[in-house]
Amino acid sequence: MTAIPSPELIASFADIVGPGHALTAPAETAPYLVESRGLYHGTTPLVLKPGSVDEVSRILQLASRTQTAIVPQGGNTGHVAGQIPREGKADVALSLERLNRIRDIDPVGNVIVADAGCILADIQKAADDVDRLFPLSLGSEGSARIGGNLSTNAGGTAVLAYGNTRQLCLGLEVVLPTGEVWDGLRRLKKDNTGYDLRDLFIGAEGTLGVITGAVLKLFPKPRGHQVAFAGLASVDAALSLFDRASSLCGPALTGFELMPRLGIEFTTRHIPGVRDPMETSHPWYALIDISSSDSAESAERMVQGLLEAGIDDGLVENAVIAQSEAQRKALWHLRESMSPAQKPEGGSIKHDVSVPVSSIPAFMADADAAVMTAIPDARICAFGHMGDGNIHYNISQPIGADSQAFLARWREVNAIVHAIVLKYNGSISAEHGIGQLKRDELAAIRSPIEIELMRRIKHAFDPAGIMNPDKVLRQD
Amino acid sequence: MTAIPSPELIASFADIVGPGHALTAPAETAPYLVESRGLYHGTTPLVLKPGSVDEVSRILQLASRTQTAIVPQGGNTGHVAGQIPREGKADVALSLERLNRIRDIDPVGNVIVADAGCILADIQKAADDVDRLFPLSLGSEGSARIGGNLSTNAGGTAVLAYGNTRQLCLGLEVVLPTGEVWDGLRRLKKDNTGYDLRDLFIGAEGTLGVITGAVLKLFPKPRGHQVAFAGLASVDAALSLFDRASSLCGPALTGFELMPRLGIEFTTRHIPGVRDPMETSHPWYALIDISSSDSAESAERMVQGLLEAGIDDGLVENAVIAQSEAQRKALWHLRESMSPAQKPEGGSIKHDVSVPVSSIPAFMADADAAVMTAIPDARICAFGHMGDGNIHYNISQPIGADSQAFLARWREVNAIVHAIVLKYNGSISAEHGIGQLKRDELAAIRSPIEIELMRRIKHAFDPAGIMNPDKVLRQD
Repeated sequence: MTAIPSPELIASFADIVGPGHALTAPAETAPYLVESRGLYHGTTPLVLKPGSVDEVSRILQLASRTQTAIVPQGGNTGHVAGQIPREGKADVALSLERLNRIRDIDPVGNVIVADAGCILADIQKAADDVDRLFPLSLGSEGSARIGGNLSTNAGGTAVLAYGNTRQLCLGLEVVLPTGEVWDGLRRLKKDNTGYDLRDLFIGAEGTLGVITGAVLKLFPKPRGHQVAFAGLASVDAALSLFDRASSLCGPALTGFELMPRLGIEFTTRHIPGVRDPMETSHPWYALIDISSSDSAESAERMVQGLLEAGIDDGLVENAVIAQSEAQRKALWHLRESMSPAQKPEGGSIKHDVSVPVSSIPAFMADADAAVMTAIPDARICAFGHMGDGNIHYNISQPIGADSQAFLARWREVNAIVHAIVLKYNGSISAEHGIGQLKRDELAAIRSPIEIELMRRIKHAFDPAGIMNPDKVLRQD
Repeated sequence: MTAIPSPELIASFADIVGPGHALTAPAETAPYLVESRGLYHGTTPLVLKPGSVDEVSRILQLASRTQTAIVPQGGNTGHVAGQIPREGKADVALSLERLNRIRDIDPVGNVIVADAGCILADIQKAADDVDRLFPLSLGSEGSARIGGNLSTNAGGTAVLAYGNTRQLCLGLEVVLPTGEVWDGLRRLKKDNTGYDLRDLFIGAEGTLGVITGAVLKLFPKPRGHQVAFAGLASVDAALSLFDRASSLCGPALTGFELMPRLGIEFTTRHIPGVRDPMETSHPWYALIDISSSDSAESAERMVQGLLEAGIDDGLVENAVIAQSEAQRKALWHLRESMSPAQKPEGGSIKHDVSVPVSSIPAFMADADAAVMTAIPDARICAFGHMGDGNIHYNISQPIGADSQAFLARWREVNAIVHAIVLKYNGSISAEHGIGQLKRDELAAIRSPIEIELMRRIKHAFDPAGIMNPDKVLRQD
């Protein structure tokens, strides 16, 4: 059980970070207490903004001694409320935003060392400045911070070629719940010396310690980049086209994104600057991103070859290839507007699921049928990273329906969709994590031994139970 | 403390696996008690060869109840004696060799599901049969078993493009020390649902549980494959050439292996069929392996472009490009003969180390100077996976020296070399693991908090301490 900090204890915490970096006024703490979807509203007596790893360490020492719950927060862009203090408790929020220094960048060694509070876009830019690529890329990259990306093992739009955040990290620095600092800032591609602590902290959503720094991989910039947009008759056609694309392009296939017609309608209707890339209309669309390390010609040959083969085989109904960087960006902007474009359409019940890639068509057919039975006029807008098997299976409310009444069915609809996900041996959280939103569901669907192993790990790292309590696992 | 099994208990263990699969006669158990380098000689009253996951589970249940130490073993090709029962104890060896079934292969989903006892080469062949590539490849692939590769997070010759074994695994099935089975046989590319148990078991060297099955990734076969061999003046030149190669080829650069002149002399002298690929002689050599997903021409263009640039810049003194699959295999055979060719030259003190790639020249210079000071006529034969920063820094005895007296200096020389590795923030075990050989050294060089975290994990998974005790960590 964590304790409610006294005014004296709050003053002691504030002393560690110094004046101006400890917030207690409700107007100042409010932005740290709500997340983007507005599903959770946290409570906190104190937001701390430490300016050094040493300050983080002293905060956690004091928290351990006084049984104070600490909730680490990066850019507050998470979708499962892992970063939000619990409602009705007195968790202290720990914002990493001031730890935002690029510590080192080595283009020969292809690594960048960054504070956890660095904004993802700033890391991308630092890499770009030395002619390297940091490939992690996602919609919220302008405000998401790398510590949060690591803590949730973020996915994004280049996973197909470069992997999740886990695959992009060589080393970590973590402040443990006791305040001790684990210096695992290694720059090695190969290091088989004991248990893999790094990958345990990655994806742990701040429940085992606070990530304060990381060594990240950089890559040579691709020489050729092509983005195509293809109109398709069905999800089956999309799967066949993906299969061809991965065999034709191998690691040069950077992205294969699926979108429904409804998503084109929503984005062109609501997002300024988005227009339909084709004059023809198709039930489904694929955005195909190809990056060649070899040459511009190689990328062009691949994209041409793929689309021609797709048309010959009757998989592709129509296609466009972006002719400029501006056009490439426009196609990606369309894709990344899928989620925001649902907001003006009323309530949206969301799922971040994955299934084996080859099961996507069957999963979608089953899920669509079940959802339409439950909510006959629902507007399903399922899109996402098809190449990763990761679908954002989102459902917009029926036209004219009461938004609150629709959203009240969130858990019920989740249960319907997730049951089908499990039938296909899929995951109920492909890239967003567990946080508070899916915690009880995780406990319900996983084997008791798996939950028990996770509990033992949690207890081994955080015996006092102060580290982001009740996230991922319910505190016992 | 583990116990010595009574004759009755041995009979009970033997009953689980059935007649013929429990070995007690010294002549039968002997092959399970020595490893390839002959540094360790274990002791065991019993070798068990279960034929199913259920039998493994029942063995561990019984072992837990009776406090019997269990040592899992795959192909017995490990280099750090992690798979060898302790000398002078009564550990029961658990051979996975009969669990050698390919459970499923899905070329569309690009996965293969294999028992832990499958021989690596058999998995490669199964993939090849469905026109896919399983890229894990190492010298001992004809006898190494995938459970051992996973338990040691094996590296090998294609890490540059495909990663270590960890990066090739999507899911695991593990029998826990209690006999409970964790079914983590997922086929998902993205799954952020709680702590990363999979990567904790990978590389744990059988100290947290027994891996019995795995879901592994398959890849499309590359369309173009080229292997070149370049003569170089120095390690510095090799680094510059590697830098050019990775920028020119990106993910198409599958291997970049460094070899010294001495290694060419050893292999041509001792290994049948190996000949010097060039008429000229050079201080250093690089084997460069390029696999293009695009086309044969693309691979050829890359290898030509790289060598021409290398010659123009004065980095490459001479070069050959393999003209056939047979020549490609011959170049790789030369590389893989480096280690066996040292045997006929007498004693060899070995190191499996890594440093940041850009530090390789400085590390090698420092290490050479220190070793030559300690053993003036030593013959350093350092070779390895330069692109991964991973050098097998091996030292052959002076000509005519007493082999035993030379090998008696193993720990002393290790200490000299590893001190320099640590100066460059390197790893004392890049790909072979810790086992028994490097256990006490690991405890000495890592921070107390890191060792303490590992101990807590070990205790959380194996409170009875029966699972491969005294490997990686000394049992307390």
